[in-house]
Amino acid sequence: MLKNFKSVEKTIFGRGGFSQLGDVVDEKRRENDGFAVFLVDSYFENKELDKQIPSKENDIVLFVNIQDHEPTTGQVDTIRDQILQQGLPSSITGIGGGSVIDICKATSLMVTNEGSSTLYQGLNLIKKPGVWSIGVPTIAGTGAEVSMTAVLTGPGKKLGLKCEWTVLNQVILDPDLITDVPTNQWFYTGMDCYIHCIESENGIFNNEYSTAFGNQSLALCREVFLGENAGQNDENDEKLMVASLMGGLSLTYSEVGVCHALSYGLSYVFEYRHGFANCIAFNQLEDFYPEGVKEFKEMVKRFNIDLPQNLSANWSEEDVSKMAEISIRLEHMWHHAFGENWKERIDLKMIKNLFRRM
Amino acid sequence: MLKNFKSVEKTIFGRGGFSQLGDVVDEKRRENDGFAVFLVDSYFENKELDKQIPSKENDIVLFVNIQDHEPTTGQVDTIRDQILQQGLPSSITGIGGGSVIDICKATSLMVTNEGSSTLYQGLNLIKKPGVWSIGVPTIAGTGAEVSMTAVLTGPGKKLGLKCEWTVLNQVILDPDLITDVPTNQWFYTGMDCYIHCIESENGIFNNEYSTAFGNQSLALCREVFLGENAGQNDENDEKLMVASLMGGLSLTYSEVGVCHALSYGLSYVFEYRHGFANCIAFNQLEDFYPEGVKEFKEMVKRFNIDLPQNLSANWSEEDVSKMAEISIRLEHMWHHAFGENWKERIDLKMIKNLFRRM
Repeated sequence: MLKNFKSVEKTIFGRGGFSQLGDVVDEKRRENDGFAVFLVDSYFENKELDKQIPSKENDIVLFVNIQDHEPTTGQVDTIRDQILQQGLPSSITGIGGGSVIDICKATSLMVTNEGSSTLYQGLNLIKKPGVWSIGVPTIAGTGAEVSMTAVLTGPGKKLGLKCEWTVLNQVILDPDLITDVPTNQWFYTGMDCYIHCIESENGIFNNEYSTAFGNQSLALCREVFLGENAGQNDENDEKLMVASLMGGLSLTYSEVGVCHALSYGLSYVFEYRHGFANCIAFNQLEDFYPEGVKEFKEMVKRFNIDLPQNLSANWSEEDVSKMAEISIRLEHMWHHAFGENWKERIDLKMIKNLFRRM
Repeated sequence: MLKNFKSVEKTIFGRGGFSQLGDVVDEKRRENDGFAVFLVDSYFENKELDKQIPSKENDIVLFVNIQDHEPTTGQVDTIRDQILQQGLPSSITGIGGGSVIDICKATSLMVTNEGSSTLYQGLNLIKKPGVWSIGVPTIAGTGAEVSMTAVLTGPGKKLGLKCEWTVLNQVILDPDLITDVPTNQWFYTGMDCYIHCIESENGIFNNEYSTAFGNQSLALCREVFLGENAGQNDENDEKLMVASLMGGLSLTYSEVGVCHALSYGLSYVFEYRHGFANCIAFNQLEDFYPEGVKEFKEMVKRFNIDLPQNLSANWSEEDVSKMAEISIRLEHMWHHAFGENWKERIDLKMIKNLFRRM
């Protein structure tokens, strides 16, 4: 049985695209109780972007704090309850990085599905489609703008609400919005895209479809992070936005692998942000992705990225065990990376040893 | 104002995907009057594929003859009238090449929009969304499986029904279906994809999004038509299906150019099939696409494709004038190729001279 992959229905790509958000939101205002919701990375509160949010009377604009940890089920449940006090919105727009977009995707589902979002962490557990969801990335690399998952950390696990209704209905990819991203964040998030492609292509669910998207995304990443004109500039901002989308599509039709499985453990226990956690993990995975890790290290060097080493010196045995337990439960990732008999290739002890290298 | 590009909602990619068509059709059977319609290239009548069509009682299976000419408005109107005698279908599936898929897309719209399809040739003239449309390509290259147009020849013009509702709702890309395509057809249709990319990238509506899709599609075309392992084989069938999709996405976010403008004239006057007409035209366009035409000629040579020369020797002055008139009206294509002031770059006389080279 092949996947029947759901796409984002509508895409605006280009500079100035953000100015069309108002039109896009207005098109849906006859649905449900009419009002629109804007979930915005709190980083933008009182900044230029804040003033351009096309909210009208009765709309809800919520600034979401995702500086300190990855999105949680509790955070989504709270936002959902707050929105429902006013009724069912006509649309929910997420303006921010992968965290805010995942919160937007999850909230869109949770306003129509009863109970806590913890009930729906997993594949195809959601019962009903959500309200119209719109994603406006302000950083490039996560692939959240096209993926069919909204990754949440809940009590006991970090796992996505994953089903076809999770996919955004509309995205606006405006390269103007990502020009001011601080270098480290730009790099860590860009590497999320790079790692998606490496993992997507190196595993059993890989196919010509995911390879084609992965290869083009990798070509763009190489231009952005290693090319003659590498670095943050207008041309590369556009390229990285397209790379992110293509990397997201590559993994959606394939799967992520070892790095993401470990990274989820790191984020669960230490609340490391996803892109950073990926970089910490990927840096130690030359046994599994030799070419990819080699190139990754060149990119780290090129931009003098401060990638912490020997973090594990300060981790307790309990921390390491907890991370390994979170990690080994992500069976679909290990299955992709090592095949059906993945348990013959990797076990809890080996995973702990990988964490101890970090 | 940037385009808000509509995507195919759901995609199945992979060998054996055709066996999931029944499930996909069944999911919609509660809509409208329940029955499903299958429009099938008449080439497949009484062939193996014919027996695998998952039709049920009350469904309509129509074999569509597209051997002799490009899809016409009359053909679509007739099919529409025949379907409506039984009611409004829950879905319409097109199984065939670009012609059948365009007929499927157009028929899906015409069962809900009144009057002749000639009324709707152009941009955003359609009033209402159509019924659920499913495309199953049996040849790769046209991009019809992802494009937002259904090209029809009507009295006086060859022009698409072009709007966001034209885009298919579901595609099934099964490389098993394209293994037996005769070499010439495989080549002409594959070149449609190649030419989409060359035209998309060489014009003013080009951007990083269309370039990324175009570049990856071109890379795949080069493997399929010029690589070490070039030719019709399992791996290349998969690659060409992905190339076709990406080429279609590239042009959708950009535009086609000189070759398509001329090719529409050829098809209108002589009923040449689209892929063939493209090849006849592109072969003479080294002034506009020097690198692309050079590479195209290498591919023609590699596969000993019989590409007729000096056709124009048998064309009347009236034929040439008619083609040039059809061609020059495709203003969006000339605009893309030469910029806003395209009328300073090309005129009817020059277009006639291009036809006389063929």
